[in-house]
Amino acid sequence: MARYDFASDNTAPAAPEAMGALAAANTGFASGYGTDPITARAADLVRALVDADAEVRFVASGTAANAIALAALCRPFEAVLAHEHAHICTDETGAPGFFGHGLGLIGLPGASGRIEPTALEAPLAAPDLSHRQSPAALSLTNATEYGTVYTTGALADLIRPAKAKGCGVHLDGARLANAAAAGFDLKAVPGLGVDILVVGGTKAGMPPTEAVVIFDRGLARRFDARLKQGGQLPSKGRFYAAPFIGMLEDGALVRHAAHANAMARKLAGLMPFAVRHPVEANAVFVEMDDTRLGALQRSGWFVYRFLDGSVRFMCSWATTEAAVEELAEVLRGLA
Amino acid sequence: MARYDFASDNTAPAAPEAMGALAAANTGFASGYGTDPITARAADLVRALVDADAEVRFVASGTAANAIALAALCRPFEAVLAHEHAHICTDETGAPGFFGHGLGLIGLPGASGRIEPTALEAPLAAPDLSHRQSPAALSLTNATEYGTVYTTGALADLIRPAKAKGCGVHLDGARLANAAAAGFDLKAVPGLGVDILVVGGTKAGMPPTEAVVIFDRGLARRFDARLKQGGQLPSKGRFYAAPFIGMLEDGALVRHAAHANAMARKLAGLMPFAVRHPVEANAVFVEMDDTRLGALQRSGWFVYRFLDGSVRFMCSWATTEAAVEELAEVLRGLA
Amino acid sequence: MARYDFASDNTAPAAPEAMGALAAANTGFASGYGTDPITARAADLVRALVDADAEVRFVASGTAANAIALAALCRPFEAVLAHEHAHICTDETGAPGFFGHGLGLIGLPGASGRIEPTALEAPLAAPDLSHRQSPAALSLTNATEYGTVYTTGALADLIRPAKAKGCGVHLDGARLANAAAAGFDLKAVPGLGVDILVVGGTKAGMPPTEAVVIFDRGLARRFDARLKQGGQLPSKGRFYAAPFIGMLEDGALVRHAAHANAMARKLAGLMPFAVRHPVEANAVFVEMDDTRLGALQRSGWFVYRFLDGSVRFMCSWATTEAAVEELAEVLRGLA
Amino acid sequence: MARYDFASDNTAPAAPEAMGALAAANTGFASGYGTDPITARAADLVRALVDADAEVRFVASGTAANAIALAALCRPFEAVLAHEHAHICTDETGAPGFFGHGLGLIGLPGASGRIEPTALEAPLAAPDLSHRQSPAALSLTNATEYGTVYTTGALADLIRPAKAKGCGVHLDGARLANAAAAGFDLKAVPGLGVDILVVGGTKAGMPPTEAVVIFDRGLARRFDARLKQGGQLPSKGRFYAAPFIGMLEDGALVRHAAHANAMARKLAGLMPFAVRHPVEANAVFVEMDDTRLGALQRSGWFVYRFLDGSVRFMCSWATTEAAVEELAEVLRGLA
Repeated sequence: MARYDFASDNTAPAAPEAMGALAAANTGFASGYGTDPITARAADLVRALVDADAEVRFVASGTAANAIALAALCRPFEAVLAHEHAHICTDETGAPGFFGHGLGLIGLPGASGRIEPTALEAPLAAPDLSHRQSPAALSLTNATEYGTVYTTGALADLIRPAKAKGCGVHLDGARLANAAAAGFDLKAVPGLGVDILVVGGTKAGMPPTEAVVIFDRGLARRFDARLKQGGQLPSKGRFYAAPFIGMLEDGALVRHAAHANAMARKLAGLMPFAVRHPVEANAVFVEMDDTRLGALQRSGWFVYRFLDGSVRFMCSWATTEAAVEELAEVLRGLA
Repeated sequence: MARYDFASDNTAPAAPEAMGALAAANTGFASGYGTDPITARAADLVRALVDADAEVRFVASGTAANAIALAALCRPFEAVLAHEHAHICTDETGAPGFFGHGLGLIGLPGASGRIEPTALEAPLAAPDLSHRQSPAALSLTNATEYGTVYTTGALADLIRPAKAKGCGVHLDGARLANAAAAGFDLKAVPGLGVDILVVGGTKAGMPPTEAVVIFDRGLARRFDARLKQGGQLPSKGRFYAAPFIGMLEDGALVRHAAHANAMARKLAGLMPFAVRHPVEANAVFVEMDDTRLGALQRSGWFVYRFLDGSVRFMCSWATTEAAVEELAEVLRGLA
Repeated sequence: MARYDFASDNTAPAAPEAMGALAAANTGFASGYGTDPITARAADLVRALVDADAEVRFVASGTAANAIALAALCRPFEAVLAHEHAHICTDETGAPGFFGHGLGLIGLPGASGRIEPTALEAPLAAPDLSHRQSPAALSLTNATEYGTVYTTGALADLIRPAKAKGCGVHLDGARLANAAAAGFDLKAVPGLGVDILVVGGTKAGMPPTEAVVIFDRGLARRFDARLKQGGQLPSKGRFYAAPFIGMLEDGALVRHAAHANAMARKLAGLMPFAVRHPVEANAVFVEMDDTRLGALQRSGWFVYRFLDGSVRFMCSWATTEAAVEELAEVLRGLA
Repeated sequence: MARYDFASDNTAPAAPEAMGALAAANTGFASGYGTDPITARAADLVRALVDADAEVRFVASGTAANAIALAALCRPFEAVLAHEHAHICTDETGAPGFFGHGLGLIGLPGASGRIEPTALEAPLAAPDLSHRQSPAALSLTNATEYGTVYTTGALADLIRPAKAKGCGVHLDGARLANAAAAGFDLKAVPGLGVDILVVGGTKAGMPPTEAVVIFDRGLARRFDARLKQGGQLPSKGRFYAAPFIGMLEDGALVRHAAHANAMARKLAGLMPFAVRHPVEANAVFVEMDDTRLGALQRSGWFVYRFLDGSVRFMCSWATTEAAVEELAEVLRGLA
């Protein structure tokens, strides 16, 4: 039987707290397009999570949330600075350029998914040239694509020079819960100068939903129209808001992420292959050749090779200790 | 207490059949992006619904589904023919132009939301001119925005000349279930020459989900990449597919729509204001001045004035006979 | 032999002043992309023309100039207010939506191409709704599409309420020279609150060239990159700038336009068909049935029927008195 | 005095043959938008140049011509294969993504601007994945960005596998004349499988104009509307067509390019710095450190450092032997 336990954190079902809130919200009639009390309550909880009086919207897609955020920060003839292996650069089929009408992406290097601060210097120092797309936004991801976690200090070191050059800042928090569980202080985010934050619900164990948090109120003007035009203003808004209530009311969001992180650490500890990146969140990347990867997949365990050449094992709220041990045994047989 | 019962058919909660299927699908790990067995099962049921071997995708947004379908049929320098009061023309914040990179909309007249067949003649007969966006697609809606239902013959009369001029055909079925409940034969749709159909889930009583049915297989090439770029390829695909299983397996989709239609007929029967359009699906449009509409809204019942000047009362699977009677009494007090 | 004299003002050759300047500029090497001294000189002359310290760029296409200006003023989920028969609405193949990524156009009525001031009231008063594209810009045309000319007072009456609602203002001056020749004070334009003006060169008797004048300096940031991305930053900039030098240095621009206007008045005086619109610039619109229009075209004179049903005769710097008389005689034979 | 002789081939004035034809075309009235006899004549000459019964359009901008061609070949969720240093990838401010609504660019390596054939293998062999933009077009440049020239055999080796995978082919011929002068057989282009060719006029010594040659007639449908929407359907078409007449009627196009190429060879022969790329067309790229480049620029000679780190010297039809010698002496003083 095929095993997708470690293929991604989006292969997991939704957590009971999220599903319970969804069921609870599914009662009676409610006004549409995010004007209902459930959406209001969820937005309050998200504001409390990051301790800021920000605008909050709930949307269906992380890809769209990121792309719409970037389109709000960057004009078509400008560019977004991002890690060269960031999700927006490699895994979203050019969505930023689609939603942003051709905006450019400038990929920056950096170990284990974290942008190397010195890599920002050249693009920020470059004079505006008419034949290039000059930077207008910085996009960050925490936890990163390679399962590492920026500290607030590390983010500040990237944001400061970008802001000084007039760039807006987007934070892709598809795995923000995992970063929080690893010690990243969510209440520090507003003070860092982030303009738009996407708080991932889907990978954190919810049905599909993402929260868009707009700290810069100027950007929020007509944002509902922006979302509607982009297909991201759900008529039945409560279905995207309710899961956040279930996951935020009693701390399930970070609690589940802490479990996912712990499962990744456990797997790393049992791993017979060399671990490529620091295991700070819920991913383990290892060195594995094609023969062994093929054998692993034929044994029923689906995982993928990444752009850096390593193979990714992803844990989630639903990963069990038993599954980790079962997988580890299979891996030992291949090593 | 505010009453949204008749404000729209998206103010209703999701039906138990849909929610039950959602809960049932939420078990174990599943492969992502629509490759899971639940999505496969739901797609089979949609194919059976329209009796065609078509490609089926499940997406989050009707606005996006329509806009992406139109972008697949019409290039930016071409135009879509549609009823001038079609949802795509009036209520989607220009989403077709956004997803379609500036494609044009040519609004056509016609009583009660149905395109007048003679209105197609001039735009289809017009020679291609470089300074105009010539028609490349015909967009139809069934049930219509005004709660009327096209017969298959009426659709055929519109599609035939459009196809003869090389136009693709899109059918917005946000309320296809209501049309079906009113006697529209869904199994006739493929034979009509429709290229892309959107089967509405949301307004039919599901959590947010829409099925995109691609009859023209040539259009399906790389459609997943098209959806992904547009923010409409859900990673946890089963959450959009499962509700269709619950609603299609035992006929709940059309059964619930038949109830909604019956509630509209009941309301029309009790209505003290003049009914503007034939009540063939789940809407009642009436003549009501601003004074009375204001009084109605102050009494807690939210309904909206439409582009044609009439006021819309919308029924859904969740509309109760008691609510219809309660509303009718309030209306009688205002008339 | 086919006669295009009155088909449009772009059927004329370029005036000797423009061609002379072009030839004079074609000497030696020059730096590219508008950084050459000829472009600088032409920009100075355009600034003097409108008496403002504005940014000036020279581009190849009026369609692109208008569309890029609108894209600078209006986001995709917003709309431009314009006369329903404005060139941007009817004759540019949806270029505003293409360059503006789906921005909307709200067509306003008004006699003879001038927006009726009361028509602005409803769209400007409408609350922002997420499902509509709310106004973000007002686009005006002077001289209008129907050969009438706004006074500065009339423009002020349209601009004031638009500005009060935060709209940017675009002035399409494809025939600004004809307006100036009719008494419109170009030096009043900056004070009116126009943000971006397009000064037409092509229809005024130049080889293809248009001047984009950006009064709002904030809009000018990275404008060259905006133009380059849109295919409107000519490498050999002097070829678009030089004609403006030839036409502005000694007043040829307005002098030629005055001739064109005079020819229109002469034609109107001799016209045996009813004149539809006031002849204030270089166009004469007349009531003519299809039989007579067909006969006229068969006799070799090409003119076109317009959206308002009338037939347009256009004069230019190159229209001769003899041609007017020759045409008038043909028309008399048809009347 | 600033010397732009070698800064680019677009710093040169227009050649007398082009200017003469422009002046000759500027007589009498002509129908608009490319329907005039001068445009027809020029199109015939372009067809003769490449020996094909193709559709030909004349546009103002090479950037737009390339971007529009790519938008015709590649949908937004697909990608264009091109040399990583191709003009479309590095110097057009993301115009392909703007005109192509977010289409992707896949940069391929290859020495001296020529795509390494083996570099095509991986992207063409990759399976279609929904989260990536899969290749739909191959864009080639001849002469290349680094002044080298593909043979027809070399182009065939690149086009064959791309076509086999269903890709369309675009040939950027901004310097096609220089390639022709270097022995590239223009009449072989149609047989190679090129779908859209852009024949550069501007860099070849004309006022701004480029010829778009559409070999695949299916792509030509509604191409004028495509151009109009993109701001590239000139009303006074003869101004873009006439220069081609002057340059093609007596062979001036290739004759001038041969001179430019000869000047580059002469410069290379006198060059005291190491020449980086084979000098096959009109460019010389050399190894020069920043100190020496700065000194050269301060002495008044403007040239630029390129992406590969070398410094480019560009020759044109207008480059004189004296200027080459003068420059060479300055360079010798710096070496």
